[in-house]
Amino acid sequence: MSLGEFELIQRYFVRKPDDWPGHPQLGHSQVCLGIGDDAALLELPPGERLVVTTDTLVAGRHFPHDAAAVDIGWKALAVNLSDLAAMAARPLGVTLNLTMPEANESWLAAFARGFWGLADIADVPLIGGDTTRGPLSVTITAIGCVEESVALKRGGAQAGDLICVTGSLGDAGAGLALAMSSAEMAGISDDDRAYLLDRLHRPMPRLLEGAYLRGIASAGLDISDGLLQDLGHLLKASNVGAELAVEQLPLSEPLQAYAATSSAALLQVRRWALSAGDDYELLFTLAPARARLLPQLRYTVIGKITPTAGLRLTAHGKPWEHDSLAGYQHF
Amino acid sequence: MSLGEFELIQRYFVRKPDDWPGHPQLGHSQVCLGIGDDAALLELPPGERLVVTTDTLVAGRHFPHDAAAVDIGWKALAVNLSDLAAMAARPLGVTLNLTMPEANESWLAAFARGFWGLADIADVPLIGGDTTRGPLSVTITAIGCVEESVALKRGGAQAGDLICVTGSLGDAGAGLALAMSSAEMAGISDDDRAYLLDRLHRPMPRLLEGAYLRGIASAGLDISDGLLQDLGHLLKASNVGAELAVEQLPLSEPLQAYAATSSAALLQVRRWALSAGDDYELLFTLAPARARLLPQLRYTVIGKITPTAGLRLTAHGKPWEHDSLAGYQHF
Repeated sequence: MSLGEFELIQRYFVRKPDDWPGHPQLGHSQVCLGIGDDAALLELPPGERLVVTTDTLVAGRHFPHDAAAVDIGWKALAVNLSDLAAMAARPLGVTLNLTMPEANESWLAAFARGFWGLADIADVPLIGGDTTRGPLSVTITAIGCVEESVALKRGGAQAGDLICVTGSLGDAGAGLALAMSSAEMAGISDDDRAYLLDRLHRPMPRLLEGAYLRGIASAGLDISDGLLQDLGHLLKASNVGAELAVEQLPLSEPLQAYAATSSAALLQVRRWALSAGDDYELLFTLAPARARLLPQLRYTVIGKITPTAGLRLTAHGKPWEHDSLAGYQHF
Repeated sequence: MSLGEFELIQRYFVRKPDDWPGHPQLGHSQVCLGIGDDAALLELPPGERLVVTTDTLVAGRHFPHDAAAVDIGWKALAVNLSDLAAMAARPLGVTLNLTMPEANESWLAAFARGFWGLADIADVPLIGGDTTRGPLSVTITAIGCVEESVALKRGGAQAGDLICVTGSLGDAGAGLALAMSSAEMAGISDDDRAYLLDRLHRPMPRLLEGAYLRGIASAGLDISDGLLQDLGHLLKASNVGAELAVEQLPLSEPLQAYAATSSAALLQVRRWALSAGDDYELLFTLAPARARLLPQLRYTVIGKITPTAGLRLTAHGKPWEHDSLAGYQHF
């Protein structure tokens, strides 16, 4: 990077204490030394464990080459914070490695707007990073903390536990179909279209929901690859099986409305909810007796854990199968 | 990545407890939960601060497209561990984000050999990462720890402090000239050539040296961009100036031998030592009275800190200037 580019990066990514509305003196209290030295120094609350996760998004693979920079900035951060939420962790800071073909100011400004839009909501400081020239890609590493005894791990689900999800499922799958100008949902309203595209491009990491689950859920993870695939990871790590009731899958109002239009639409919506990725909701298991410990959390029970391996789908109590899901149903 | 590629990654990057020679039971003691969940869990020693740094290496920019994979694996880790060393920190773990055009097994095996070659020497576990398809680049984020009161920061140098460096300078610059088949050093021996190329391709992060400097050096950083440029960062952060004696610059035996061949060669060697990057030695300042606290550390005094801003170069007590360095001498 040339000096001019360096200054451009500084302008959009290095914040001064005055830039932190809630922290007028020092920025985030856990940051002892921010950007500008060889490395950042962070304080970890006593007794807590460090939680570390990282994801790379590559242009042309994880987002289209012409994707809006504001969405890339938001989503690259969101997918990493979602992994912290999936551990019931609190974010301490993130690093940002941005590789760009050129330092285009309007692109950078939009990217920064998306990044900080979510970073400010999640109250997470940028503690370091690297800017390099090359084909567009974004790597974010998120660092958080949680007490080990209450961290949300994948193993730990027990037979009889309820299977639960936050929010609604399938929205990002529907959003992707809309973004790719699929023939489906041709009659959808502008508001519903905007909602579904927003769910695809600007997922909201479930940090607060993850925090509620500390020490209460028996196992959990975030749904990034689709419900069935991610549930498969949880079942494998916990060495159990599951029954899912497809009529219980939580659907947003736009998807409920679309599902009501035809049986083909209902089937399509269920396929999105079961196997499309990118929803970034939390999937967790809960001993029935502990459900009363979550009065504040909105979630939906979609099934229960069974003692023997394998996954069985039902609709209104009867077995439910569909060829297009065959690859996911047995592991 | 397809399942086959996923298994390839697993083979080279996921280690089982038995793979850790020194830690037969659990791997590294600070790793509570390794690769395989949504995020890793790490323990931070009580009273210490977290140190976080990250660097991206892009093919065609930071290394040639045909660079040996074993060297890329080593160097991508080395440059990040060097930043931890520059804070006097101890490494706790690293994450590795590898973007590759294809999952080529022989390339991956060589990359892993380089990566683990250094990771095992530095005793640092791989705690997470991401593998994506795209133009070749490597991002590593290194996490370490240090007590805040003894961390090695850039500010803190005082007038009268000695300016010191570990190891020798200019080797990587000479190695780069050799790698690019420069006309310089045409008569060099095979052993000397191998040494200089090794210094370029496989820098050794000065973690042990950084640990010695805890609470003793007044300021410090690692030399990645060249002595003059990195010294400039230290002087600016400390709000002081410096005098450097170019005849004191520590040179390896191969560079001493080459410098003795002609006055042009001596000048070239000094230019490499002053302004070529990639040596990854530590540059630090030291109150003269504290020098006795470092009996175990090998280092060279190359100058002293002055109260007023600016940098003055001398050779045997006389002012020393050279046009090709003019850009670096005033800041």
